[in-house]
Amino acid sequence: MRTLDFALARKTLAAQPFSALLGARLTAFGGGEATLELDIREELLQQHGTLHGGVLGYAADNALSFAAGSVAGPGVLAAGLTIDFLRPARGEVLRARARVVRAGRTRIVCRCDLTTVDGDGTEALCAVAQGSLAVVERPAGAEQPPG
Amino acid sequence: MRTLDFALARKTLAAQPFSALLGARLTAFGGGEATLELDIREELLQQHGTLHGGVLGYAADNALSFAAGSVAGPGVLAAGLTIDFLRPARGEVLRARARVVRAGRTRIVCRCDLTTVDGDGTEALCAVAQGSLAVVERPAGAEQPPG
Amino acid sequence: MRTLDFALARKTLAAQPFSALLGARLTAFGGGEATLELDIREELLQQHGTLHGGVLGYAADNALSFAAGSVAGPGVLAAGLTIDFLRPARGEVLRARARVVRAGRTRIVCRCDLTTVDGDGTEALCAVAQGSLAVVERPAGAEQPPG
Amino acid sequence: MRTLDFALARKTLAAQPFSALLGARLTAFGGGEATLELDIREELLQQHGTLHGGVLGYAADNALSFAAGSVAGPGVLAAGLTIDFLRPARGEVLRARARVVRAGRTRIVCRCDLTTVDGDGTEALCAVAQGSLAVVERPAGAEQPPG
Repeated sequence: MRTLDFALARKTLAAQPFSALLGARLTAFGGGEATLELDIREELLQQHGTLHGGVLGYAADNALSFAAGSVAGPGVLAAGLTIDFLRPARGEVLRARARVVRAGRTRIVCRCDLTTVDGDGTEALCAVAQGSLAVVERPAGAEQPPG
Repeated sequence: MRTLDFALARKTLAAQPFSALLGARLTAFGGGEATLELDIREELLQQHGTLHGGVLGYAADNALSFAAGSVAGPGVLAAGLTIDFLRPARGEVLRARARVVRAGRTRIVCRCDLTTVDGDGTEALCAVAQGSLAVVERPAGAEQPPG
Repeated sequence: MRTLDFALARKTLAAQPFSALLGARLTAFGGGEATLELDIREELLQQHGTLHGGVLGYAADNALSFAAGSVAGPGVLAAGLTIDFLRPARGEVLRARARVVRAGRTRIVCRCDLTTVDGDGTEALCAVAQGSLAVVERPAGAEQPPG
Repeated sequence: MRTLDFALARKTLAAQPFSALLGARLTAFGGGEATLELDIREELLQQHGTLHGGVLGYAADNALSFAAGSVAGPGVLAAGLTIDFLRPARGEVLRARARVVRAGRTRIVCRCDLTTVDGDGTEALCAVAQGSLAVVERPAGAEQPPG
């Protein structure tokens, strides 16, 4: 199984057009954990002026995949996830911290906390997620990063 | 409780900057059902060339909200959702069809089927979702559409 | 892959001590669908006099497993599920109808509708569920039914 | 809003016939947390000799409800939950530890870790859950404990 280090993980994220569109960046990676962040800007809002739930879902999905990739290598695929929204998401930055709960041979289960960070660095928890990823069988050396 | 007709629902969708960024359109609305579509374009993909899971999550979230809005008016807020990914999503159009399963006084539960449609109109089911929405109490006449 | 017919499926259910404790019976099975029923009795209630949510969770979990088993044979294991409770469950019988949404090579996704049936046969939808099952690899002829 | 202390919480659990049937006990309660335990016995197994998934679902559902009840009083009702199964559950005791993630005015979101404990006290994580509960409006003094 190929491994995925921080540099390759960032390269993988950069290779996702949708992540580039949203402006996501990987700020921590390794040991079963991954943190994804993006700046909250006008284009990502819904009509109430808060972050669209779809952006929270994106961040959870991708953070879960990278957390799993940090232990299982690039060949993981999101199988499903659950997200509960806790409060309207406002602030300057959205931060999604995911961690592996259990890494099995074929399936990895992770959790994710999503917070918004305002101008003075205060974090507020705005959603929590739980999801599972399939470890995809593949020939050694095959190119197939997480996402 | 104010009601939400197809014209107002479309206006509501157009007022969501994130939906505009993704190019979503409402193609059916009413009677506890809503269909949301978007063209699958390069910017919405992940690194494997298939639609990013975050786009599927967005479409499910928003379709569920509009289905609920079609019975409860504009004052609904997504509380949480679960999505299971069934196969890589490829094609020309993503279609998310949601319907209300049960509309309670304070909470509405919906399901959603997500399909991709290819060039000759063939649909393939690529994800299924289930979610709940909170009916937000508000003064009559207050402006607060679904999303 | 061994197959699972109605007779073997019923035998499998009877071999589950917890299903015997709850009094569950399989009333339909085959073609990606399974229906599980149990009589609502005092021992299965919570303190409000309605059916305990844990009984609904049990029925969903087992119905999903049997629906999956009807297409993939006995070697399936529940990976996870989501259940939304719609209204207090009262009546004479609990009925859980599950159907396969998508059967992949390693993972099967199903949905389930849970209804209560009262004395004159009227059904009321009380919960909906969605879940996934892992298709467990095993030597041909190995004894490992769904559950 | 009435409050719920450890003594009343135990009394509430004892008043649930299904919890009595399963032999559940509350071993910790307060400050947004609750721990529920039950002895793993033959009657709670499925046909493979491991704990039935329905028992894990029951324990998650009830632990989540009591964790929520510890902050919101007895008037909470489970709205929905997601459970991911991590490994076959074997051992002497099942322990479900739930904690409140966010307590809103009308909805409380909780997480739960489920472990099995073997004869020498070793714990193994066998499932994780996330769920939400509705805070039910009721007249002061009304009798309606969590469950």
